[in-house]
Amino acid sequence: MAIREFALIRRYFAGLGGGSDHLVLGVGDDCALIDPPPGCRLAVTVDTLVEGIHFQPGCEPGALAGRALRLNLSDLAAMGADPLGFLLALTLPAADEAWLDAFSRGLAADAERFACPLVGGDTTRGPLAITITAMGAVPRGQALTRSGASAGDYLYVTGTLGDSRGALAALAADGSGGGELAERFWRPEPRLAAGRLLREFASAALDVSDGLAQDVGHIAVASGLACRVEVASLPLSAALVAAYGIDTARQWALTGGEDFELCFTVPPSRAGAMEQVLAAHGHRVTRIGAMVDGQGVVCVDEQGAALTLERAGYAHF
Amino acid sequence: MAIREFALIRRYFAGLGGGSDHLVLGVGDDCALIDPPPGCRLAVTVDTLVEGIHFQPGCEPGALAGRALRLNLSDLAAMGADPLGFLLALTLPAADEAWLDAFSRGLAADAERFACPLVGGDTTRGPLAITITAMGAVPRGQALTRSGASAGDYLYVTGTLGDSRGALAALAADGSGGGELAERFWRPEPRLAAGRLLREFASAALDVSDGLAQDVGHIAVASGLACRVEVASLPLSAALVAAYGIDTARQWALTGGEDFELCFTVPPSRAGAMEQVLAAHGHRVTRIGAMVDGQGVVCVDEQGAALTLERAGYAHF
Repeated sequence: MAIREFALIRRYFAGLGGGSDHLVLGVGDDCALIDPPPGCRLAVTVDTLVEGIHFQPGCEPGALAGRALRLNLSDLAAMGADPLGFLLALTLPAADEAWLDAFSRGLAADAERFACPLVGGDTTRGPLAITITAMGAVPRGQALTRSGASAGDYLYVTGTLGDSRGALAALAADGSGGGELAERFWRPEPRLAAGRLLREFASAALDVSDGLAQDVGHIAVASGLACRVEVASLPLSAALVAAYGIDTARQWALTGGEDFELCFTVPPSRAGAMEQVLAAHGHRVTRIGAMVDGQGVVCVDEQGAALTLERAGYAHF
Repeated sequence: MAIREFALIRRYFAGLGGGSDHLVLGVGDDCALIDPPPGCRLAVTVDTLVEGIHFQPGCEPGALAGRALRLNLSDLAAMGADPLGFLLALTLPAADEAWLDAFSRGLAADAERFACPLVGGDTTRGPLAITITAMGAVPRGQALTRSGASAGDYLYVTGTLGDSRGALAALAADGSGGGELAERFWRPEPRLAAGRLLREFASAALDVSDGLAQDVGHIAVASGLACRVEVASLPLSAALVAAYGIDTARQWALTGGEDFELCFTVPPSRAGAMEQVLAAHGHRVTRIGAMVDGQGVVCVDEQGAALTLERAGYAHF
């Protein structure tokens, strides 16, 4: 669909998200050209969403597009990187103009909001799938990785956990999107501003995509430590607790996945300053545990007694 | 398939293609980290190959992987960029270990050959599709774009044209890959070394992916000129002419596509020096026409008479 492809790209994607000081050449040549900010490293990540696996047929194209971009921006946030731009590889069963129009509008709105222009891409025919490659810049030596935690570091998360899982439950139960929870599923907020501030404080970080209990395990493994999570401290939204009760809310906070909050570690000596700076910028962060010697992830109750993963929620899934 | 995915990535993809001076952090964190060479711009490109559209079920996974990488490297070559690394988004119907083993071996061989390590990726379940994002570096102000040609510039291509189309014809006719032509289809040579040399000489460049007649049109449009292509000058391989005759070979050179040769323009005052330097480094380049005032692509015969696109080959497709 070569000729058709050019027209489609011009119409729906050229110039999407505006320009940027770092974008030298955007959509329309063999490659995009980016001028990386001096003294920075480039952070790059890619994610694919496939119809029938990651989303169901018939979902609103603009929301889908925005979510695809936000998931990638969340990975940039987890490194403390500022967005430079993204590439879109879009596989479509047919060139449905109404679908493309809604998709590109949703994508443009979020690309502008997060100052992350579309710089290039590829459109192909095939089963519907969206692959986004996001690029960001982070000052040399300041990137947040998974491997820097030390024993004794406190463990934190941004925002609240479990809401995406609540939205999926509401959808499965009655076909509704679940109001506030649905908004959290479809429009997860990439914690770019928090990630930028955390460059100064965090010893390790990642974004919570597969469920907190699993994801903190990556910090534990990469840092050669164990992770102790205080289940009673997990930040829960009022909407989630009201809809499903505290026990289910905690289970979903541990295991639900797709939260796209940052989980990070901070040395105790820096914890107070970090909390002040993040709060001053309007970011909610909650201390949920600590890194300890050993390996694996241990969940503990309010008395400090270890919960098996089954009791902490795993058995329900 | 989260847990399974981690094991699969560790086994088949971590460290693929080796390291590089510019790769700070590879597969296994939220993002890869790359240290771009100072004074360079970043060139980025993405391409997707979908089973049933771009390749048929059952084709050899290692060759498929190598081809997917080479197509992207060809886009870097067309900008005059040196490879820095690539991201792989792989969508698979199932985690078939034999398939993954062959795929990753083929990919590793070409990643090493072209000094372009795998830096990150995503594996998802779904209909088989391969999306590669390649990143390269090009010294500031030296990138080869489509828009820099002037009237009077000579038009050149590297290598020979039409061989991939010949390979597909052989495959359709008797199921054979077509020997030497098949090699050209499955293992197109990204003209990275030629692209690097052409930074000094070329006014515009692209890689020939959709067929020369269509692709030179992009240089014409981007540069605000017309393109005059001398059909008798098109470089043809002996294998293609022997198998299909001169007329068909010329048609396929103009319209066949998937050649992944560089097509570029050079000011007449620089043409002699360019030819010498490219020849000294073992690169075949052929002058096939010139940029002229006007718009569109004009094909001319040996007497300089214009051929309609039908007579030049388009009618056959």
